[in-house]
Amino acid sequence: MSRFISCEAGRLEPYTPGEQPVDMQYVKLNTNESPFPPSPKVVKAVSQAELLKLNLYSDPTCGQLTRAIARRYELKPEQVLAGNGSDELLSFAFRAFCGKGKSVAFPDVSYGFYKVWAAFYGIEANVVPLKADFTIDVDDYMDDHGTIVLANPNALTGVELPTAQIQRLLEADRDRVVIVDEAYVDFGGESCVPLLCRYDNLLVVQTFSKSRNLAGGRLGFALGDSDLIADLNRVKYSFNPYNVNRLSIVAGAAAMEDEAYFQKCTAAIQKTRTWTTKTLEELGFTVLPSRANFVFAASKSFPNGELYRKLKENGILVRWFDEDRIRDFYRITIGSSEQMEQMVEEIKKLLGEM
Amino acid sequence: MSRFISCEAGRLEPYTPGEQPVDMQYVKLNTNESPFPPSPKVVKAVSQAELLKLNLYSDPTCGQLTRAIARRYELKPEQVLAGNGSDELLSFAFRAFCGKGKSVAFPDVSYGFYKVWAAFYGIEANVVPLKADFTIDVDDYMDDHGTIVLANPNALTGVELPTAQIQRLLEADRDRVVIVDEAYVDFGGESCVPLLCRYDNLLVVQTFSKSRNLAGGRLGFALGDSDLIADLNRVKYSFNPYNVNRLSIVAGAAAMEDEAYFQKCTAAIQKTRTWTTKTLEELGFTVLPSRANFVFAASKSFPNGELYRKLKENGILVRWFDEDRIRDFYRITIGSSEQMEQMVEEIKKLLGEM
Repeated sequence: MSRFISCEAGRLEPYTPGEQPVDMQYVKLNTNESPFPPSPKVVKAVSQAELLKLNLYSDPTCGQLTRAIARRYELKPEQVLAGNGSDELLSFAFRAFCGKGKSVAFPDVSYGFYKVWAAFYGIEANVVPLKADFTIDVDDYMDDHGTIVLANPNALTGVELPTAQIQRLLEADRDRVVIVDEAYVDFGGESCVPLLCRYDNLLVVQTFSKSRNLAGGRLGFALGDSDLIADLNRVKYSFNPYNVNRLSIVAGAAAMEDEAYFQKCTAAIQKTRTWTTKTLEELGFTVLPSRANFVFAASKSFPNGELYRKLKENGILVRWFDEDRIRDFYRITIGSSEQMEQMVEEIKKLLGEM
Repeated sequence: MSRFISCEAGRLEPYTPGEQPVDMQYVKLNTNESPFPPSPKVVKAVSQAELLKLNLYSDPTCGQLTRAIARRYELKPEQVLAGNGSDELLSFAFRAFCGKGKSVAFPDVSYGFYKVWAAFYGIEANVVPLKADFTIDVDDYMDDHGTIVLANPNALTGVELPTAQIQRLLEADRDRVVIVDEAYVDFGGESCVPLLCRYDNLLVVQTFSKSRNLAGGRLGFALGDSDLIADLNRVKYSFNPYNVNRLSIVAGAAAMEDEAYFQKCTAAIQKTRTWTTKTLEELGFTVLPSRANFVFAASKSFPNGELYRKLKENGILVRWFDEDRIRDFYRITIGSSEQMEQMVEEIKKLLGEM
């Protein structure tokens, strides 16, 4: 840190993203990207004509994209906000709905960024441990009248919380915002989007990074009551109004409109997830029941990061978190079936060497 | 505002960007975009192969882009940070270098976003009026030991502050950060970049939106001592680590490497600016001496927004700010020579009708 840094910035606890190595080609199963290229319609949409308009600012309202998302989810465009990745929108939501006297609550094994944003805005955080089986018990949140943030399916674990449980939270205090981070919902999870028509205290955040094959396009969206979205816009226009670039707007709209490709890709991931889970279990792993495009798995044969290190040596990257409770687990992205077979072969070899 | 909004978000004073109308085609001279398309090398760089990799996250360090910028400005890559437009980087800089006990000072007629970010982070702002001739007197800032932000050439006015004056500020207090927002420096202005090797308290922020013809790509960059850049990274990784998308990274690198096209475009703008200034003066306008890709001009014939309204009726957009001291001025982007001729013809017609 320089001698110029503000106290507030000095206190930050920056997030560590998954490795994005450039030294060699890995089988990348560490950041939950899709193994499939974007929809052919995306490739077509980012046309020569669009490129030639890059000298002009993008539409700060992202109209074309917002309308495509609204149509897909049967909402009004004013119920949709697009962002530079769902991270940006979650950050905006922390500012919009938390502050002095308005704390934020979230589970302890979940997306690691929630505590970072709380620190960024100086928001008091109520961090609630998951149950022993890595599930969320919403009763733990009933008496908390600050804002609640839940990743569903949960980040890191892939475990799903039934939306009926989230509905209980929404009902219990209609003056409390519940933010549901549905980054991983499209792989067999149940979305809270149908609840939006009944609860004006629900904000759903989704991303194009996983199920829409556009991690490199940096696109996320928030869905909610138009008043909540207006609050988020208030933050956005106080931070960075032109937050989405021209090419991502057209790419995102095209991706959203290609329902068939989306269905095909997400179905393939689910099929491969079933195979991977079964195979890892046969190899002695404990695999949490996942509704996401990854599995969270542990094996007595590979404690404390051992599998992460061994696989990396052999050109395969998975994610390991050196944190209490999950130190023996590995978060393994569901890639193509070929990639998963390659990983399984490597694990078999490692087990054979023991 | 919803009943859920935090006090902090409720107090925000969002920025109003220039109009981006979609109802009809205007001659857009209101948001300082380049009238020229991006470099042909940019169009080539955003290739089919790059599009097919959009399923993978972008490099959070923006290595390819950062290196291209570092080469161009003869700096080390660790002295460069890329952002989702220079707005994002300026916002990061406000967080990194201002806070409790560390105020921010900036001129009163300048980029309107400075006061918005100060409010966003709850930073005390010392707003210093420009002199009567719309110049900055650095002596007004000598006794202010908070962070100083100066747009140079100044936003809205286009007036340049000699870098020797900025150097006086840098010298006067080596423990104070001076942020120089050089969004408009490439149109004949003098950059502070050569001062970077001598002052570790200098941060220069530039953009691809004007002189690099990439407003729609959302790209900016900060240049400074590697410790200052590390502080900014601390903020970035606490907000949105993957802040630049894949296509903008390759587009930006290609734009930065096409020096010949950059020189050609910026020279053309300067030539057209000379013509526009002279012509407007002949029509009775007062035109501030501009080193930017716009002119700030007033005419007794068109007080109080009259020219803005009349031109808009006729399909030409310029920017008017309904604010004290500048209510009779119009900020007119330097477009192509054809666009400027069209605007001048329209003004002549309007004058003829009087």
